[in-house]
Amino acid sequence: MPQVRRLFTFKLSGNSYKVRLFLSMLGLDFEAIEVDMRGGEHKRPPFLALNPLGQVPVLVDGEVTLADSQAILVYLARRYAEASWLPLDPLPLAQIARWLSIASNEIQHGPATARLITVFGAKLDAALAMKRSVAILTYMQSHLTQQQWLVGERPTVADVACYPYIALAPEGHVDMQPYPQVSLWLARLAALPGFVPMYVPATTA
Amino acid sequence: MPQVRRLFTFKLSGNSYKVRLFLSMLGLDFEAIEVDMRGGEHKRPPFLALNPLGQVPVLVDGEVTLADSQAILVYLARRYAEASWLPLDPLPLAQIARWLSIASNEIQHGPATARLITVFGAKLDAALAMKRSVAILTYMQSHLTQQQWLVGERPTVADVACYPYIALAPEGHVDMQPYPQVSLWLARLAALPGFVPMYVPATTA
Repeated sequence: MPQVRRLFTFKLSGNSYKVRLFLSMLGLDFEAIEVDMRGGEHKRPPFLALNPLGQVPVLVDGEVTLADSQAILVYLARRYAEASWLPLDPLPLAQIARWLSIASNEIQHGPATARLITVFGAKLDAALAMKRSVAILTYMQSHLTQQQWLVGERPTVADVACYPYIALAPEGHVDMQPYPQVSLWLARLAALPGFVPMYVPATTA
Repeated sequence: MPQVRRLFTFKLSGNSYKVRLFLSMLGLDFEAIEVDMRGGEHKRPPFLALNPLGQVPVLVDGEVTLADSQAILVYLARRYAEASWLPLDPLPLAQIARWLSIASNEIQHGPATARLITVFGAKLDAALAMKRSVAILTYMQSHLTQQQWLVGERPTVADVACYPYIALAPEGHVDMQPYPQVSLWLARLAALPGFVPMYVPATTA
């Protein structure tokens, strides 16, 4: 019996896109359920039963309900993907954990926050978000001068986790010109099989 | 030949403590190297060669150099710990990834930031840090009403990752009274073999 797979998503959310993107790259069908975030649906029942923190995305995959885009990538990789997407040896797994931390901290509070301010009018510290954006992009530029992918020699969940809000950085008025290696990495990821851009609906069931 | 293991640390850093704590719980010897963060040593060479983002802790374990406290926990668990500290099945691994994200985002920008303001005089938004602290602690209180540990039925790296800045929350003037289940969980973790408190040096080689 085919399992029901639903993704609670918001079309302007880079974290939601992150999961839609990986589902598409893995060729997994799903039903996308749009959450009315502008109307506050994510902060009320019944959505809060899916994620008490009131954030999208949430994946419901048969019996499994899971919030947090990084966690969902890890789940999908372990359950459905080739092992190269999430190598389990101590060092590569730790290096991936580091980039998942960077996605949750430096990228979320850097370029993603810069975009929250410009696109959604969030009352957050724009100068701080820009300073954090420059710091993480400077590091990524240096790192990606030495290698093609964030961890090892093949794409992993680390790349997928970091992609959306770096690709969306210009919407937050972050200038990408000083980071050509980062732009090349974005293009490399966008050339992978199954890639879908942010603003086109992913394939649904 | 015994491997040289060094931890670059700062004694008031909860992220440094996180790694010292897990090393102690695993009974692993190490040399602690105090970084003069007040003097800006972490933002200059040669430290920047260890971590270009200029953050402690950094672990040097033989040939491996690794930054980011969450990533170091993952490395140590995979390399040296019993499998129960980091189960690899899709769902528990993803649930752990979720709590590592929470440690990097909601806890770092909630109670850890509240403490950066009170203890270090950081010029950050105190009201926002307090709002975020209440949100994550409210979720943890609810979650820990249903279970003893953050993921599954045994302690994992998720508990170690979240412990320090929740234990330190009162230093940021976060009132823990509304979260008795969280306080019980803190006490449960502090009763595990090998536990060391923040302000006493961990066992060194």
